[in-house]
Amino acid sequence: MPLSDNMGHGRLILENAPEGVGIMKITVLGTGMVGDAIATRLIKLGHEVRMGSRTNQNPNAEAWVKRCGHLASQGDFANSATFGEMVFNCTNGATAIEALTAAGASNLAGKILVDVSNALDISMQPPGLLYGRNTSLGERLQAAFPKVRVVKTLNTVNCKVMVAPRQIPGAHNIFVSGNDPGAKTSVSEFLCSFGWEKAEIIDLGDITTARGPEMFLPLWLRLYGALGTGAFNIKVVR
Amino acid sequence: MPLSDNMGHGRLILENAPEGVGIMKITVLGTGMVGDAIATRLIKLGHEVRMGSRTNQNPNAEAWVKRCGHLASQGDFANSATFGEMVFNCTNGATAIEALTAAGASNLAGKILVDVSNALDISMQPPGLLYGRNTSLGERLQAAFPKVRVVKTLNTVNCKVMVAPRQIPGAHNIFVSGNDPGAKTSVSEFLCSFGWEKAEIIDLGDITTARGPEMFLPLWLRLYGALGTGAFNIKVVR
Repeated sequence: MPLSDNMGHGRLILENAPEGVGIMKITVLGTGMVGDAIATRLIKLGHEVRMGSRTNQNPNAEAWVKRCGHLASQGDFANSATFGEMVFNCTNGATAIEALTAAGASNLAGKILVDVSNALDISMQPPGLLYGRNTSLGERLQAAFPKVRVVKTLNTVNCKVMVAPRQIPGAHNIFVSGNDPGAKTSVSEFLCSFGWEKAEIIDLGDITTARGPEMFLPLWLRLYGALGTGAFNIKVVR
Repeated sequence: MPLSDNMGHGRLILENAPEGVGIMKITVLGTGMVGDAIATRLIKLGHEVRMGSRTNQNPNAEAWVKRCGHLASQGDFANSATFGEMVFNCTNGATAIEALTAAGASNLAGKILVDVSNALDISMQPPGLLYGRNTSLGERLQAAFPKVRVVKTLNTVNCKVMVAPRQIPGAHNIFVSGNDPGAKTSVSEFLCSFGWEKAEIIDLGDITTARGPEMFLPLWLRLYGALGTGAFNIKVVR
């Protein structure tokens, strides 16, 4: 992982900074529960994080900055996209393409975009999938932003599990999909820094494989209904 | 479970006949790998099984009868549907509604239909889902045959795992969806007779919840690609 150009400005050397992930400037697009969970986790790992939203006066983002201190900042989508060396898409999947268009293709070009979002049709109960049966948001983002290195991951668990997987007992799995092997390696190192074990990460293949984890959502939602908790994950057993 | 009217005709009392599942006359629609696996397992459990196909001269069905002996028979869809007290749908999900129409709504009325099939679009590689993103074959079958008690299950594992789940180490899960609680209980008893543990069976809810396990297929197919084997399943961990 490339280290931030901004290293050495009096930042603490963090005890929990994992091997393999250097301290970086990171953008988190989205100010909902998912964006907050990811951005807060990144701050705790010592990264410099900017939370992006439609405006630069988003109350969620302002509260998050106040809570997280000097490594945290906020801005509009374009300003935030410019800031980060790596970008997490934590926007509502249903409007993610518009959000990333506002962020600006040129501001995102060449960067890794970690897409953790789900495009849900919330007019249904439980929510349905917004996109067709044989496509995925991950693919659509990659097609819309061809210079961005999209990696789909983490969308198969709730945001608490995303950033603290060890709250679930034993081993369980998370998936990565993307066209750029180097980007998947970098994102896997980030997942490990969140607490995922390397052996738990399953590389499904190119970005078209994002259909698998995205279409898992209808089962996740029914399991959530049947179990009465979102604090679960699946383990592939063989 | 109601015992077959045909009990006591010199049939062996089988040592492995599980508690809770009486010996029955069962129809298995479909002569492919899935139909063969299910029908053969049912024979081994002591049930009287008729395999149904479009014609009554299907070579797969003829070979299966020859292999399985006196408890095995074959017939066309309608003849087979009349025979069984319970029906397994192991036809190609893409043409299941036509197959069941040929079986005859009146021949199926009141019976449990265990739908283990997946409706795949095999024009794609890997296959895509045939139906829309917010429906399922299970629901369509229930709507097309309102007097049938449809239970969706087993479609999330390959046919070897369906009937011999203990080949996968440790605990792992299987799902049931259906509108009739009694039918789900009966099907769960059958699953236990196949080797599933009661605690591994997750009742997702009514037949609309079949969307979850059906839309799991795209992930199953990518895992199959990534792992290089179909001998796996998922375990819900919490």
